[in-house]
Amino acid sequence: MTTAAKLNIVPFVSVDSMMKLVLAIGVERFLTELAAYIEEDFRRWELFDKTPRIASHSHDGVIELMPTSDGRLYGFKYVNGHPKNTREGLQTVTAFGVLADVGSGYPMLLTEMTILTALRTAATSAVAAKYLAPNGARTMAIIGNGAQSEFQAIAFKAITGIDRLRLYDIDPSASRRCAKNLAGMGFGITICSSGQEAVEGAEVITTVTADKQYATILTDNMVGSGVHINAVGGDCPGKTELHRDILLRSDIFVEFPPQTRIEGEIQQLDPDHPVIELWQVMAGKVAGRSSDKQITLFDSVGFATEDFSALRYVRDQLQATGLYEELDLLADPDEPRDLFGMLLRAGAKEGVVA
Amino acid sequence: MTTAAKLNIVPFVSVDSMMKLVLAIGVERFLTELAAYIEEDFRRWELFDKTPRIASHSHDGVIELMPTSDGRLYGFKYVNGHPKNTREGLQTVTAFGVLADVGSGYPMLLTEMTILTALRTAATSAVAAKYLAPNGARTMAIIGNGAQSEFQAIAFKAITGIDRLRLYDIDPSASRRCAKNLAGMGFGITICSSGQEAVEGAEVITTVTADKQYATILTDNMVGSGVHINAVGGDCPGKTELHRDILLRSDIFVEFPPQTRIEGEIQQLDPDHPVIELWQVMAGKVAGRSSDKQITLFDSVGFATEDFSALRYVRDQLQATGLYEELDLLADPDEPRDLFGMLLRAGAKEGVVA
Repeated sequence: MTTAAKLNIVPFVSVDSMMKLVLAIGVERFLTELAAYIEEDFRRWELFDKTPRIASHSHDGVIELMPTSDGRLYGFKYVNGHPKNTREGLQTVTAFGVLADVGSGYPMLLTEMTILTALRTAATSAVAAKYLAPNGARTMAIIGNGAQSEFQAIAFKAITGIDRLRLYDIDPSASRRCAKNLAGMGFGITICSSGQEAVEGAEVITTVTADKQYATILTDNMVGSGVHINAVGGDCPGKTELHRDILLRSDIFVEFPPQTRIEGEIQQLDPDHPVIELWQVMAGKVAGRSSDKQITLFDSVGFATEDFSALRYVRDQLQATGLYEELDLLADPDEPRDLFGMLLRAGAKEGVVA
Repeated sequence: MTTAAKLNIVPFVSVDSMMKLVLAIGVERFLTELAAYIEEDFRRWELFDKTPRIASHSHDGVIELMPTSDGRLYGFKYVNGHPKNTREGLQTVTAFGVLADVGSGYPMLLTEMTILTALRTAATSAVAAKYLAPNGARTMAIIGNGAQSEFQAIAFKAITGIDRLRLYDIDPSASRRCAKNLAGMGFGITICSSGQEAVEGAEVITTVTADKQYATILTDNMVGSGVHINAVGGDCPGKTELHRDILLRSDIFVEFPPQTRIEGEIQQLDPDHPVIELWQVMAGKVAGRSSDKQITLFDSVGFATEDFSALRYVRDQLQATGLYEELDLLADPDEPRDLFGMLLRAGAKEGVVA
């Protein structure tokens, strides 16, 4: 097949290929390299065409499209959020995404993004913590030990040096599973019986619970001075994890303010409450952590540029690993204006009249 | 493989499968059945979550996402428009789309939509003409004989009884190819040497040229009373085909006014110029054609509900035809909250440590 004849092909990374890709690269290295892509894109934040995600809400959940572009590449992610799904043996969140060439409009990559989103969320948290966590932090509490928890732990280990975990989940079996999954990876792990116990001695507190409701995973008295809070679970309207008083004591760092004010912990605050844009910290325009006493809060909701970075990273691994399939996605008639003729010729080949 | 084990699978209709599907059903029958789906969805227009397409513009073209939902199903199309592509042997427009279940957020179908968009555009024009073209119309001029022209001709034949075509294109070889592609399908075809000649005696005038510019494919003197104009080619800001005076003499029917005022022929008119919504005609709320002298104009730009109808139609053909592949798109851990464990187990199977 000549190159010209393959204009119809879009590389596709299936779930199976993504797992093989992560295993081939190694999850720690994958997270570290992905974090570098995310950081690189945050640093050139101003180049991006940014828009809040386009959401279609229904009784049971939401389906969202998250597009962005840096002017050369265009990416979007399809992602749903349906908390009731777990009761039916389905995932709460599934996702896939596409990277395309802005110059031709042709898609260049279609990939599963359920696993990839888990990885990019963790990598983003860890990159933020690199600028915001106390110097030399080694202990992290993880409250909520579901699908995201192991990825957070490994990303923090790889990127910030966290190696002691204090796990708490209202479902103790979730904590046990998390500890088991992380066994042998170099963590000292303590399973705790309350959130209060989990935060004891922790320099970083990660909240990553899943219920779609206003919750108070952390109360004000649980958060001592100097701590970095990585608030991951509050990520849609009506879903928060932190008591409002904690927010008032913290310096709050966000991805894209128009989106975070709707979806993040700061939906609890006045719409003009001051926040700091994470990209400005990474670009060296404003300080990250500036004192030992400061409470820093990364109000993570997940933004389209992070998915864009993840799509770029996966695209860049394809050639070396060969872990993709060729998808016949784009009609490519031998003569560009003759779409119908292509159909006729396909019919002639099979002896069928259109 | 059990049903539960196939939660990861999304049916995928490749370009090859789509061609086979159209050939298996027959292009006339495909267009007729698709038109019925489009009409059904226009009739329940008020149910749909409607939004203008989300466009990412660049120097060379545009990439758009077109989502919509009827509350039970959600669909979106990715489509680009890059006029310069033909010079590089690429398609101006390529597209693919996804249908998903609103209840779970899970995608149910991924399909090529370059061919499918050509079919739905033609089917929509023909459905509109069923309500707007003069009674007993048999002759249609087609000005612009590129990739969309044959589909328009066949849809009008199948749905409105057009069987005489008058073809004109600035590139005479395009008209010859269109005539050749339509040979033996029951049309009387005249190739014309000007737009003026093409419209002589035509009861329906279809304009479907491709240049991205303000053009005047039809001047006012070319349009006699009683004609139906099917204006397909003017479909983005800065791209129109009809002289403004024609619009002022016509009753103008549109898909979704907020989108058509930006993208359609009516971008030439005042923003409050009266237009009639096509769905209201199909739902019997307002009249379509009401006199023999009236000039009716369908200012077609293509709307998300038409893609939604097309996705529904293709989905409904899958089981009987088997013309799809199974795409491993959705991560489906044996235990919903244990995404990382799925990765570990995949590694264990291959003897790799995550």
